[in-house]
Amino acid sequence: MPRVTVTRRLRFNAAHRVHNPALSDAENAKLFGKCNNPNWHGHNYTLDVSVEGDIDEKTGYVCDLSKLKTIVEKEIVDVVDHKNFNLDVPFMREVIQTSENIVTAFWKILAPKVKPGKLARLVLWETENNYVEYTGR
Amino acid sequence: MPRVTVTRRLRFNAAHRVHNPALSDAENAKLFGKCNNPNWHGHNYTLDVSVEGDIDEKTGYVCDLSKLKTIVEKEIVDVVDHKNFNLDVPFMREVIQTSENIVTAFWKILAPKVKPGKLARLVLWETENNYVEYTGR
Amino acid sequence: MPRVTVTRRLRFNAAHRVHNPALSDAENAKLFGKCNNPNWHGHNYTLDVSVEGDIDEKTGYVCDLSKLKTIVEKEIVDVVDHKNFNLDVPFMREVIQTSENIVTAFWKILAPKVKPGKLARLVLWETENNYVEYTGR
Amino acid sequence: MPRVTVTRRLRFNAAHRVHNPALSDAENAKLFGKCNNPNWHGHNYTLDVSVEGDIDEKTGYVCDLSKLKTIVEKEIVDVVDHKNFNLDVPFMREVIQTSENIVTAFWKILAPKVKPGKLARLVLWETENNYVEYTGR
Amino acid sequence: MPRVTVTRRLRFNAAHRVHNPALSDAENAKLFGKCNNPNWHGHNYTLDVSVEGDIDEKTGYVCDLSKLKTIVEKEIVDVVDHKNFNLDVPFMREVIQTSENIVTAFWKILAPKVKPGKLARLVLWETENNYVEYTGR
Amino acid sequence: MPRVTVTRRLRFNAAHRVHNPALSDAENAKLFGKCNNPNWHGHNYTLDVSVEGDIDEKTGYVCDLSKLKTIVEKEIVDVVDHKNFNLDVPFMREVIQTSENIVTAFWKILAPKVKPGKLARLVLWETENNYVEYTGR
Repeated sequence: MPRVTVTRRLRFNAAHRVHNPALSDAENAKLFGKCNNPNWHGHNYTLDVSVEGDIDEKTGYVCDLSKLKTIVEKEIVDVVDHKNFNLDVPFMREVIQTSENIVTAFWKILAPKVKPGKLARLVLWETENNYVEYTGR
Repeated sequence: MPRVTVTRRLRFNAAHRVHNPALSDAENAKLFGKCNNPNWHGHNYTLDVSVEGDIDEKTGYVCDLSKLKTIVEKEIVDVVDHKNFNLDVPFMREVIQTSENIVTAFWKILAPKVKPGKLARLVLWETENNYVEYTGR
Repeated sequence: MPRVTVTRRLRFNAAHRVHNPALSDAENAKLFGKCNNPNWHGHNYTLDVSVEGDIDEKTGYVCDLSKLKTIVEKEIVDVVDHKNFNLDVPFMREVIQTSENIVTAFWKILAPKVKPGKLARLVLWETENNYVEYTGR
Repeated sequence: MPRVTVTRRLRFNAAHRVHNPALSDAENAKLFGKCNNPNWHGHNYTLDVSVEGDIDEKTGYVCDLSKLKTIVEKEIVDVVDHKNFNLDVPFMREVIQTSENIVTAFWKILAPKVKPGKLARLVLWETENNYVEYTGR
Repeated sequence: MPRVTVTRRLRFNAAHRVHNPALSDAENAKLFGKCNNPNWHGHNYTLDVSVEGDIDEKTGYVCDLSKLKTIVEKEIVDVVDHKNFNLDVPFMREVIQTSENIVTAFWKILAPKVKPGKLARLVLWETENNYVEYTGR
Repeated sequence: MPRVTVTRRLRFNAAHRVHNPALSDAENAKLFGKCNNPNWHGHNYTLDVSVEGDIDEKTGYVCDLSKLKTIVEKEIVDVVDHKNFNLDVPFMREVIQTSENIVTAFWKILAPKVKPGKLARLVLWETENNYVEYTGR
């Protein structure tokens, strides 16, 4: 059977502050600039969740994208949408709240939940001009 | 001379919380739902600034859009980008931090600064699925 | 109070055939070309619903866009999404299934339901290269 | 009959130089900055052509958008696509090659050709961050 | 010579119904939900055709994208645009009409036709929120 | 440490003419069609610069995207924006001015400058319907 990658795009809005608590305020301000604003800022995030697998003969699907959407909404969107990544999201408490750390945290949560097929790629857009991608390596 | 409307699009990222301090927490939660999250959330805002005027024969412009951009960056973007509308933006302190109140506050600031031509319309996108527009009426 | 126009964008997918039953098949084929395919074709439609009104002092809203979304989903999206405009949509049975007739039919349904504020404009995108707009005149 | 506005979007790529031959090179450089580069630069332009009219009972159309597309391709796109606005486009020779002057020149050409319905609005995007609009006033 | 991948995007509109004729109506309704509507629904599909190859020294091209466009229009777009995938498209008759089966059918048709260079990837967007990709494996 | 790919999108406008000076005018016209217009044409180019690397524990970044932006602006955008690829850009003088040759020239310039992390992919959009990508192979 041919192996196809299918993708579902989801969106959420959140606040964050890029801040390393192990460093001084001056070091944080120098490293992170306006992204370090103590009163937070925020984004409309876009997340592309890609699953790779064989096409199921019974359904013609790699996986049912409406079921994939339900999984991602429950595991990710309901936890982060209209939230503050630093204050409200348990799995982001121990790391700096960058897109790189967000996307790898999402991977750890989603990889065991996605089925059939296997999680192949996550792309997280923070603005329309920057995005990060992770393939589990 | 023909009257043309010219538009410059700018972007900024900010955090906010939709909250009416005159109401109880319960009333706020009921009225504003997840937009009332006390720890804030945020957006990538897009602002379209439209100026109407005659075409200047010397330049072929209604107004120089790079100068318009400089005005909007100084008056608006530098004040709100990577900021918290509730905590960091002086002109938003006395009103609820909705897009409607943001766009009319922007109008008050920009209308007297824009020249040549007159401010004709502001469109503020909060997400890719909702936006507000104001023409000064 | 300033009058602001607020807009909520919604999407739906539907099939249709542009066909005038009062004309012969040959006339229909000549008038409507490939849009007259008897086996249907379809689109991802985008609908922008705009409501104009004063800003409410208690909420900072012209109208609550999540409530507006609920109204449009109930009155329009649930009736047309993943449907055939010619066969499945009662209010489109007596007219030709063009975007012009769709948008004016949507207006008749939504205008009395929208509140607070008044329905100000509907924009219906059929493809990324064509759209129709109606303001109730 | 309800009056509806229908729009067809078209695209073309062209080079230009914003330059006023009545002024010195130094004045041009000061007025127009990098847009005055003597070796030209260019854009992917997007043009939205809007026609307003009653819905025709026989067709359900204000006007047949495929016919409107043919008119705009013949009158505008074939003349400017992959061309230099300063050197190749006869109707732009006597004016400065700004978007404002381009859109009003397009209007003069298209207004008498569009039928049924009347030309209601032209929107010309020069980049994704700036556009001009003209309604014939 | 460096190996570059070049992509041409094309669009078409079509109707379909996701349906497995080997299953009962009840099973189909349960498996496919609203995508199983017997009266069809439809989409504006976007197809990205990617070809990989060496840069030709004479032309500076991997392949002439206007020729690639002509090939894809003849082999794919002319066959599926404004059509019904279930009723009108011969190569989709024996499989369930999902994006996964559409994209792999497109691959079988395009892979032997594309030259110079080799077909490297097809991406098919069904809506702006979901897409499938196939690389021939 | 997980390896993540981060991308910064930048934009520039430029003129060009696809032309092989080793061939006759007739051969050029036949090979390149309207892209060979002697008076140039132009585009709004979009460039996605992707860098792959480990996440730095101190910053949570693969690389600071604002620094990456500064590098690409200095090395690429300042050299090509509002310029003519054939006449104004030194590194494009010896090759045909196609997107394939532009993207590989950009790679040679950027690959040694990018750090930390390594340049992983460049994607150059010439129009919204065609783009080229290069990974250094």
